[in-house]
Amino acid sequence: MQNAMMPNWLMQRANLTPERPAFETDGDIISFRMLWEQVYELAGKLASLGIRKNDHVALLSGNSLDLVRFFHALMAIGAVGVPLNTRLSIEEQVWEIEDSKASWLIFDDKNHLFNSAANEPRLFHRISISQVKRQSHSEVKLQAEFSLDAPCTMIYTSGTTGKPKGVVLTFGNHWWSAAGSALNLGLTETDKWYCCVPLFHVSGLSLLMKNVIYGMPVVLAKKFDPHEANQMICKNGVTMISVVANMLRRMLDDLGTASYPDAFRCMLLGGGPAPLPLLQRSRQKKIPVYQTYGLTETASQMVTLPPEFMFSKLGSAGKPLFHGEIRIIKEDRVADPGEAGEIQVRGMNVSPGYWNHPETADRTFSGGWLRTGDIGYLDTDDFLYVLDRRDDLIISGGENVYPAEIESVLLAFPDVEEAGVIGVKDEQWGEVPFAFVHMKPERTVSEKDILDFCQKKLARYQLPVGIQFTGLLPRNASRKLLRRKLVDRLPKEFSAQK
Amino acid sequence: MQNAMMPNWLMQRANLTPERPAFETDGDIISFRMLWEQVYELAGKLASLGIRKNDHVALLSGNSLDLVRFFHALMAIGAVGVPLNTRLSIEEQVWEIEDSKASWLIFDDKNHLFNSAANEPRLFHRISISQVKRQSHSEVKLQAEFSLDAPCTMIYTSGTTGKPKGVVLTFGNHWWSAAGSALNLGLTETDKWYCCVPLFHVSGLSLLMKNVIYGMPVVLAKKFDPHEANQMICKNGVTMISVVANMLRRMLDDLGTASYPDAFRCMLLGGGPAPLPLLQRSRQKKIPVYQTYGLTETASQMVTLPPEFMFSKLGSAGKPLFHGEIRIIKEDRVADPGEAGEIQVRGMNVSPGYWNHPETADRTFSGGWLRTGDIGYLDTDDFLYVLDRRDDLIISGGENVYPAEIESVLLAFPDVEEAGVIGVKDEQWGEVPFAFVHMKPERTVSEKDILDFCQKKLARYQLPVGIQFTGLLPRNASRKLLRRKLVDRLPKEFSAQK
Repeated sequence: MQNAMMPNWLMQRANLTPERPAFETDGDIISFRMLWEQVYELAGKLASLGIRKNDHVALLSGNSLDLVRFFHALMAIGAVGVPLNTRLSIEEQVWEIEDSKASWLIFDDKNHLFNSAANEPRLFHRISISQVKRQSHSEVKLQAEFSLDAPCTMIYTSGTTGKPKGVVLTFGNHWWSAAGSALNLGLTETDKWYCCVPLFHVSGLSLLMKNVIYGMPVVLAKKFDPHEANQMICKNGVTMISVVANMLRRMLDDLGTASYPDAFRCMLLGGGPAPLPLLQRSRQKKIPVYQTYGLTETASQMVTLPPEFMFSKLGSAGKPLFHGEIRIIKEDRVADPGEAGEIQVRGMNVSPGYWNHPETADRTFSGGWLRTGDIGYLDTDDFLYVLDRRDDLIISGGENVYPAEIESVLLAFPDVEEAGVIGVKDEQWGEVPFAFVHMKPERTVSEKDILDFCQKKLARYQLPVGIQFTGLLPRNASRKLLRRKLVDRLPKEFSAQK
Repeated sequence: MQNAMMPNWLMQRANLTPERPAFETDGDIISFRMLWEQVYELAGKLASLGIRKNDHVALLSGNSLDLVRFFHALMAIGAVGVPLNTRLSIEEQVWEIEDSKASWLIFDDKNHLFNSAANEPRLFHRISISQVKRQSHSEVKLQAEFSLDAPCTMIYTSGTTGKPKGVVLTFGNHWWSAAGSALNLGLTETDKWYCCVPLFHVSGLSLLMKNVIYGMPVVLAKKFDPHEANQMICKNGVTMISVVANMLRRMLDDLGTASYPDAFRCMLLGGGPAPLPLLQRSRQKKIPVYQTYGLTETASQMVTLPPEFMFSKLGSAGKPLFHGEIRIIKEDRVADPGEAGEIQVRGMNVSPGYWNHPETADRTFSGGWLRTGDIGYLDTDDFLYVLDRRDDLIISGGENVYPAEIESVLLAFPDVEEAGVIGVKDEQWGEVPFAFVHMKPERTVSEKDILDFCQKKLARYQLPVGIQFTGLLPRNASRKLLRRKLVDRLPKEFSAQK
């Protein structure tokens, strides 16, 4: 059997297309050659800290070119970058750093990270990006080749229950993800991807890999701003962008009556089932929305709705990447078409497992199949429909109630800006749905009006027992709705099931 | 380490994009779904012949949809297809069939194969395509997954010296070739590749793989015709085509003052160093020529000149695919820039070795590096220039003389249609170049005129000692010049060195 090796990606890219632009950020453009030269130098500075092959190194930074350079420098050394979510509490960050056995915490000191582990005295080995840059250079043998089986990065999953776990992604996982995505979405010389999702999430990190593997320029945004995103598409030649539903909605609001240029070819929409009204608005605007389903454990994109089915299978997440497979398991058997069950996926992009959790190997990654914990079904043409997180599922009088389905109806009601649904205890049915609604500024509506509207569109057991009007809904750094945090906003006469 | 497995390519493709056109041939269009249904049925018929996993099966056929189906049916069974060059003599074909230990020879009986092994009574297990189709169906467990390390096909290399050897190409070799090529050439929804090279050569066979891996329609031609090829590009939406220099020249002659539509995006030019005048003509016509260098052992394309360097590095074969590497070895050390030596290549697309020739494992595939037997150099920017086959190299008074360089000058002379150069014995210099020239119909010229022209462009030791006017030059099935066969045409006062 052949040893699965590839040349160091950034080094190879700098050799193949040195003068192509690699990153655009804040109006600056950096070529692959320049990026490699900087990374080469940075790797020597990291080596002077004693960082060696197979070390884990925690990275705490928002999106920046520096973060890009640190990822590549660690890959060149053969160390594993462990990016931390900057929005976590100090305790959560410290927990992840300790759990990961990171030898260092490297943090951004240019942009304020409030309440972060950067200032936590318990962590002896912490150093700022500026300090690293002032280090002297140590000799280090850089990896001219990457072994596809070696760990490349580790990202902690936010997880809806329990402590977060470090998802190990190998070089091979990232490679197959990027190659599979190129076969799925195509690849052209004029492609330019707008990265306004965090690099510490797999959605952003996968763009850092595509950047070098494709030789494709990435425009790196510090944070998401709907107007800026639209400007990038309309005036700066951006052809592809990754978003979640909430971001797309805000972009559409900002876009108004304008539309995107023809060169814009891919709005990759992930982060959970998209509400139907949003897809319909996008359709009216002729926006090439590729709905996609992916996880940290699949190194991002796993299932995507191909262009020819964009309209006929509206609401579906599509079919797997060329090298991937999906199945639906219900009570230990493969489900029939249309029958909901747990989504399981398999493929070369799927993580070999969680760091330091050998007990999950069987439970979560059984026989190569990753048990995603998400509920969905395949239609008769084998298209995947993602219903919801298994953990968020509401079982009401024996019926499965999917919060996302109810939220989709609520979002179709005029002036509803955000909607979230959770299950609350009920004597008669065990559990019943309860809704949270955030209205557009200065718009009000009665609970009864919304419930009347819902009654026309939902089955009786899907109808919320109550609606709470509230502020913006809680979301994680990739703007996914955090339903479990809605529990705190429940009126006191209700109590959550979980 | 993860088991490198992928879903069966055609099955997966038929599941992902069932109604997309797979092949167009003779005006017929067949979808991926139809192709898979036919292949599924055919696999059962092959099983009834006793063909099982790991069997070798020789295939003797020109380009046809049947040949495509047989390749896929064998892959589905896990048997290894061994395509034979239809132009070989009976003895050569029989030799390859016996060397490969093929359990069956399956031959095309619709199109006449003159003097072929199809009628050879020594071969007990031979059966025509029509006969196979009349077989009953046997139950057979088809491979739902392909192991990337398993052998997929075996192609005998024409080889300039010695007996041909069977090059084993694994599923992984074909996958990495296709994925690497997509990253190199891009991939768009409107791509359509014209296959007018033989499927029994790696140039054609690689298109059969790209077809399913990309989900890209292939227009399959029985044989190359320059006018038909031009029609396909100009009127039938073909966007990509693989050719060798001689084919491109004939297409340009046919094209006359016309030009190709903008949608035509890739003229992939392989099969040896291209003569400069041809590249210049292509440039005038604004044809997007991608010069490429590849071998059977590399599953086709290994090195390609990327678009941004098309003009500034005219004559170079470019840089390796993203996952590949090249080096130049001169006298057991890595050569300096500009210094010629043996081209060696490495990458996941490189064959694990020759069938039944374990002794070549070290000599030819040393430490993962394939010794190609070709001579070339890298310039200071790491671009590869292929000079010639090592076996065709002429050493004249200690100087290296590359036939391709002299041929390129001869081809620049008006009305010279083909040119070939070999070395002949010389008392003073050891070896000197001798030229064969084929003029355009009804054009004549004197030897002296050509030599005067050459004198202005070549060094003294590169100047041919004689020129023989002759008919069309000998070429193999992929239209590569066969210099060793020119020896037979030498005037009797000369004798070849090798």
